[in-house]
Amino acid sequence: MTMMPNWLMQRAFLTPERIAVAAEEETVTFHELHIRTLRKAAAMQGEGMGKGSRCAVLMKNSLDMAVTIHALAYIGAQAILLNTRLTAAELDYQLRDSEAEYLLYHHALEHQWEKPSWISIDSRNLESLTETEMFEKTFHLDETATIMYTSGTTGKPKGVMQTFGNHYWSASGSSLNLGLHHDDRWLCAVPLFHISGLSILMRGIIYGMTVVLHETFQPEKANKAIMEEGVTIASVVQAMLTRMLEDLGDAKFPDSLRVMLLGGGPAPMPLLKECKEKSIPVYQTYGMTETSSQIVTLSPEYSFSKLGSAGKPLFPCRIKIMNSGAECPPMAEGEIYVQGPNVTKGYWKRESTFHDGFLPTGDIGYLDEDGFLFVLDRRSDLIVSGGENVYPAEIEAVLLSHPSVLEAGAAGADDPKWGQVPVAYVVLKEHVSEAELLSYCRERLAKYKLPSRIYFRDSLPRNASSKLMRRMLADGGRHD
Amino acid sequence: MTMMPNWLMQRAFLTPERIAVAAEEETVTFHELHIRTLRKAAAMQGEGMGKGSRCAVLMKNSLDMAVTIHALAYIGAQAILLNTRLTAAELDYQLRDSEAEYLLYHHALEHQWEKPSWISIDSRNLESLTETEMFEKTFHLDETATIMYTSGTTGKPKGVMQTFGNHYWSASGSSLNLGLHHDDRWLCAVPLFHISGLSILMRGIIYGMTVVLHETFQPEKANKAIMEEGVTIASVVQAMLTRMLEDLGDAKFPDSLRVMLLGGGPAPMPLLKECKEKSIPVYQTYGMTETSSQIVTLSPEYSFSKLGSAGKPLFPCRIKIMNSGAECPPMAEGEIYVQGPNVTKGYWKRESTFHDGFLPTGDIGYLDEDGFLFVLDRRSDLIVSGGENVYPAEIEAVLLSHPSVLEAGAAGADDPKWGQVPVAYVVLKEHVSEAELLSYCRERLAKYKLPSRIYFRDSLPRNASSKLMRRMLADGGRHD
Repeated sequence: MTMMPNWLMQRAFLTPERIAVAAEEETVTFHELHIRTLRKAAAMQGEGMGKGSRCAVLMKNSLDMAVTIHALAYIGAQAILLNTRLTAAELDYQLRDSEAEYLLYHHALEHQWEKPSWISIDSRNLESLTETEMFEKTFHLDETATIMYTSGTTGKPKGVMQTFGNHYWSASGSSLNLGLHHDDRWLCAVPLFHISGLSILMRGIIYGMTVVLHETFQPEKANKAIMEEGVTIASVVQAMLTRMLEDLGDAKFPDSLRVMLLGGGPAPMPLLKECKEKSIPVYQTYGMTETSSQIVTLSPEYSFSKLGSAGKPLFPCRIKIMNSGAECPPMAEGEIYVQGPNVTKGYWKRESTFHDGFLPTGDIGYLDEDGFLFVLDRRSDLIVSGGENVYPAEIEAVLLSHPSVLEAGAAGADDPKWGQVPVAYVVLKEHVSEAELLSYCRERLAKYKLPSRIYFRDSLPRNASSKLMRRMLADGGRHD
Repeated sequence: MTMMPNWLMQRAFLTPERIAVAAEEETVTFHELHIRTLRKAAAMQGEGMGKGSRCAVLMKNSLDMAVTIHALAYIGAQAILLNTRLTAAELDYQLRDSEAEYLLYHHALEHQWEKPSWISIDSRNLESLTETEMFEKTFHLDETATIMYTSGTTGKPKGVMQTFGNHYWSASGSSLNLGLHHDDRWLCAVPLFHISGLSILMRGIIYGMTVVLHETFQPEKANKAIMEEGVTIASVVQAMLTRMLEDLGDAKFPDSLRVMLLGGGPAPMPLLKECKEKSIPVYQTYGMTETSSQIVTLSPEYSFSKLGSAGKPLFPCRIKIMNSGAECPPMAEGEIYVQGPNVTKGYWKRESTFHDGFLPTGDIGYLDEDGFLFVLDRRSDLIVSGGENVYPAEIEAVLLSHPSVLEAGAAGADDPKWGQVPVAYVVLKEHVSEAELLSYCRERLAKYKLPSRIYFRDSLPRNASSKLMRRMLADGGRHD
């Protein structure tokens, strides 16, 4: 088992004076971040937390959240990172499924759940005046560092286990593609509870790089960070980039911006072309919670000639396209399979889904003659709304639990602001209004998962095996 | 066991058009390097070589040598890299000890050994017109890739086993310190049979970076590569740097040179100061065959303020100073111990020398209050001559095998060109001339190990346990 020094501790030793995090509220060096982390870790130990503890984190992007995540690694606990937009019912499920022993929360989010049976601690109260000495000085790369929930086609979210090794290899693979400059500052305006944000935090302490941390994404603030605050790399999804371009108007980003890393699903060609015209160095990327961030990213030399492609695998990784158990030739569509030391070892308490060393993603795509990946659809039916993954099966499960609903289907509808929004289609047993159903959903689904419309149909499109054909829902419910 | 794609194959897939090696005779892309490697691998298979074969390589820096090393990895063989300056007797020892089954040699070096009992192949004859398909597509990081011989204090050279993982972690650790730019070109004017050169070859295929490969070090050629050919990083030892500065005269290196990586032993302060005045970005480093190249390197922000220090450990590594079984406090001298995933798992056919997870180096140094390493002496008595390690015990063993010699001691003497040169001290049983002894040594020791002088003494300095005090040899042989 490969071991290495605790990353933040090593950074605090190697490059103590460099800026580690430039948050909106304040800026700290690696030394200062380490000291705060030691104090937070001491407070955690005071609460009985320690090696092997399972600690859920429900916090907003902030220096305090970064310190909390690092402190959990210092005491050897696993961090279960929760999406702050979940409803009480969704939170309850993830807390129970993950067997969390502690919930560390930001006080502003306190109203979101009902009185829990586990120990919950307001993060403001996790401050110690003294520092612990009983921290983990060594990271074992095979040990689980973090768990994040993601839904599959089956509806119920599953906990993706990410090891220290997964995070290291992800950071290492990214740097071998994007390079690593001493003046790099990576903008994190995506949530730290998503892998897109957490991976920036990890790169920060592995690279010795400044993370510019925003609490929420605001296009004018993000642009200001690039224009005036020396941001060299920014992680965005399509909806963010669109709004940043609107805010930018006729202005241009400075040359100091060397990478605009665009993830979260295939990007529309008009957007990519607009970026090309404005000389914005967009690098399309494909990744997921299970790959600990990017696994396929376009290299700089192909960023324009292969516009629209997600690129080739990162250096330590492989991909292949499979169809009916066989590997597809170039240009043939199939399911994307991934392999690499950044790929999760599996889902918490679930059986392995690996095939011959590769993880099937459920996403559909093809490789061109040169081996570049083009992603056609995320997880067949996945709806990507403003960078959040929305799983139709989750919406359908809620609708089907309503006594008046006989059948339910959900799919994405194009939306100028969010890329996509979910819409639902139902067949009723007995009359119920759209407003009533939406109100029922609102209690059970995070806001971004809420269907924008619910349409009533006589039947839903199903294939010969009666499998719901979600892509055909919008066609009016005809059978095919 | 962590696995990843075969490095050169992956580079040939990811970045086929980039320049992989700019050798003096020609320049090849990663795609071209891959094709040549496939052909060389096919020829090797035609000779019966394959998975697990133990293949010694006795070659001069050249594209052909680079291809040979990569081809051995393609067929899953281990490369035993031999110093081309060894005598026939030294070669014979390393070939036998390593249990080499094949010797691949450059024809110009053919005269160096006697007719061997193993299969030896002129590298010119290892050219196939067809390509093999039976190569290793995956590297297992725990498997031994290369073996290099290094002597210890006991005299006989030992084979240091370097795994694929050791090489990857070395490259990864180096990039986290020095950064990684898309236009990087690393000058390799040090031998590929040394870890200083081999590690550049490995970084080339891991980073996707151009290696500028010189057959031998010539200061004017090295300077030209920096001045006119876009070299951004150069690996040098003190004797090389001194000669490059002489050749440079009043000229200045361009800003494109971002790292002058100075290894091979402590550097004299006047040289460092001269570089500082000329704004040459010298990064002192400390490393050895056992650490697969650098393990301690000065960070950019301290390159001037900590002048004279080798720096702090690379990100994945740790060091400590030990004396009489206890860890030394800051400023106290002791033996340097190293730890990290780039550190060898051990010596071929020798027992482990690890203590509590750390490898004792035999080198002497101390850490300052900030944790910066200052190396005082390489392996107590190691002589570093022009970047080559010379072990006194090896010279002494040869002298002691002469019938007229009773006692022998060797040590380094300062030399303006080579940094140090070996000198020897002997106590005779019966008369023999210095010339006769030198002639005897010449047959048994590589040229760079040959004593520049042999002094006759009545006795040699020994401590209370009769252990030879090599550092006191130059004082005239007084007992202490």
